[in-house]
Amino acid sequence: MKEKLDQLKTKLAEISDLGQAAALVGWDQNTYMPPGAAEARGNQQAILARIIQEWSTTPELGKLLEELAPYADSLDPDSDEARLIKVSTRDFHKATCVPVDWVVEFNQVTAVAFQAWVEARQKSDFPHFQPHLEKVVELRKRYATFFPGVDHPYDALLDDFEPGMKTADVKAIFNTLRPQQVELLQAIAAKPQVDDSFLHQPFDEKKQWDFGVEVISKFGYDWEHGRQDKAPHPFTQSAGRTDVRITTRVYPEFLNPMLFGTMHETGHALYALGSAPALDRTGLDGGASLAVHESQSRMWENLVGRSLPFWEHFYPELQKTFPSQLGEVKLRDFYRAVNKVEPSLIRVEADEATYNLHIML
Amino acid sequence: MKEKLDQLKTKLAEISDLGQAAALVGWDQNTYMPPGAAEARGNQQAILARIIQEWSTTPELGKLLEELAPYADSLDPDSDEARLIKVSTRDFHKATCVPVDWVVEFNQVTAVAFQAWVEARQKSDFPHFQPHLEKVVELRKRYATFFPGVDHPYDALLDDFEPGMKTADVKAIFNTLRPQQVELLQAIAAKPQVDDSFLHQPFDEKKQWDFGVEVISKFGYDWEHGRQDKAPHPFTQSAGRTDVRITTRVYPEFLNPMLFGTMHETGHALYALGSAPALDRTGLDGGASLAVHESQSRMWENLVGRSLPFWEHFYPELQKTFPSQLGEVKLRDFYRAVNKVEPSLIRVEADEATYNLHIML
Repeated sequence: MKEKLDQLKTKLAEISDLGQAAALVGWDQNTYMPPGAAEARGNQQAILARIIQEWSTTPELGKLLEELAPYADSLDPDSDEARLIKVSTRDFHKATCVPVDWVVEFNQVTAVAFQAWVEARQKSDFPHFQPHLEKVVELRKRYATFFPGVDHPYDALLDDFEPGMKTADVKAIFNTLRPQQVELLQAIAAKPQVDDSFLHQPFDEKKQWDFGVEVISKFGYDWEHGRQDKAPHPFTQSAGRTDVRITTRVYPEFLNPMLFGTMHETGHALYALGSAPALDRTGLDGGASLAVHESQSRMWENLVGRSLPFWEHFYPELQKTFPSQLGEVKLRDFYRAVNKVEPSLIRVEADEATYNLHIML
Repeated sequence: MKEKLDQLKTKLAEISDLGQAAALVGWDQNTYMPPGAAEARGNQQAILARIIQEWSTTPELGKLLEELAPYADSLDPDSDEARLIKVSTRDFHKATCVPVDWVVEFNQVTAVAFQAWVEARQKSDFPHFQPHLEKVVELRKRYATFFPGVDHPYDALLDDFEPGMKTADVKAIFNTLRPQQVELLQAIAAKPQVDDSFLHQPFDEKKQWDFGVEVISKFGYDWEHGRQDKAPHPFTQSAGRTDVRITTRVYPEFLNPMLFGTMHETGHALYALGSAPALDRTGLDGGASLAVHESQSRMWENLVGRSLPFWEHFYPELQKTFPSQLGEVKLRDFYRAVNKVEPSLIRVEADEATYNLHIML
């Protein structure tokens, strides 16, 4: 069994290495790709995705996993090896449902769609993106048909981010949350509003950036195995445990996007950087699911980054950085302002939607 | 034959797309890779190189090329199709001589060696790089043994950059040039030396960068299909005709590296960007050979960028950019200074050697 397990690990390492290369190509697309390269980028991403798809579905891999199944059952179910065999078997069966032609087309279409999204976003020109979005939605609908056994078509898509989670589960959660949240929002709206006008002022972009870097360095972000760049929508990209990059954006007249976006992405990165080295190149590294990932990012952004103790420590430094903007603003008022709750079309509707689309891409 | 030619083009396009992805991963290694990612990068590059090597040497590809050989002979030998078949056949036969294990090992070793080179260079610490260099030389010597028919072991390496060129040819060229160059250098050294001290002053780095950008924009560098970043040693990287990137470096107290490095790389880029679209994804795109590439880079750097008419146009702008450094320096003196000839250990020996090594890597 040792030999077969080694064979499995070798195959997974090859797929993982190729996935990391694809991740780097994707990172580049989001950060530094020249705009005219979108179509070629689609071909580059398609060929990588095609090979990954082919290697993830070979009969040899299936046979190996089948032979290892009894061994996995004999192990502690929480052991790395048992999970490796179980998760790889799950991934294998899912991958075999998806035709390689779909994978190629999806990568070509989304590369061009992504560039159109960047341009449309800059110009607030939705019609520029619309035909691309329609193609992506069409392709995603087709993807769902590859899994005819699901209760709801979206289950097929959701499972890629949150293994085992169903649309019905999500609905149940939001059906409970929504009325309470609406009530809470209404109660907040009925009260005098928190003043956060001082967050909407000109803030020097380089000073913002440097302050963010100082904060996340204290969070323990590892610059030896990471870096930060700008991107239209912040994201974290891992190309293995030793290369976990974050991105942020800096608004010239609003402090929050840089501040909390940077902390948020650092949360993702700290989670991925903290993967056990034993899981390198296995497919188990990098994080368990999107929800667990978001729990980490939002913990750093909200539980830490919007807490009073955090700002007791960092606010004097921020005031020194922006004396004319914040010198007269009291800690308590700043703390209340960064915790201000309000319905926001930009953040909740449009931006999160494009973000989810982006992950979907 | 049309059908077979299409089959060939499909195969070459796949190899080319994968090569472009590998080029992007290599670009990233030279520009933005976190230092701790070197080993993982080696695995990523090795898997890409392995697939490219495997796809470049399949019996199917060999059979296809053999079947197309008579067709190629029937065509105008200078036609794109004839050259495609001929060059692909040459590349196929060369590739089949190289074991895939060597390709994997070479990529893993050179990724780690590259990072050591970056570190050693920063600290002027050759012993830090030496063991890596020894491994690379050892691997290169082994590579030469895969081509036992060559007149000189270096012929095997040289052919990768300059197809058909032999070590004996290069020696003959330099045997003719060297005595005349030594004589010329001695004659120059015997004369009063050109004053270029004003080039060695503090020059604001951002202003240097912006001036370089303005110059190469006027050269016609296409920012829609390219970009410029900093790198320890400037290079140009093409990921297809629609994505040809340059790099430069900016010395805080010496104007020449940014100025002429930027023009040099732009020369490479303009050549690659000027490939015929019909050659996209064929392996014929991007340039004929390293010597032809250098002819283009050095034309822009030296014939254009060190010419008097060039500086008649650009010098007033440069003076305006650096009034305290160059305001009092006359055009003629500046022109003479940037054309100053002197033996330089840094440029000719160490830097070109590391550059050549880098290409070799």
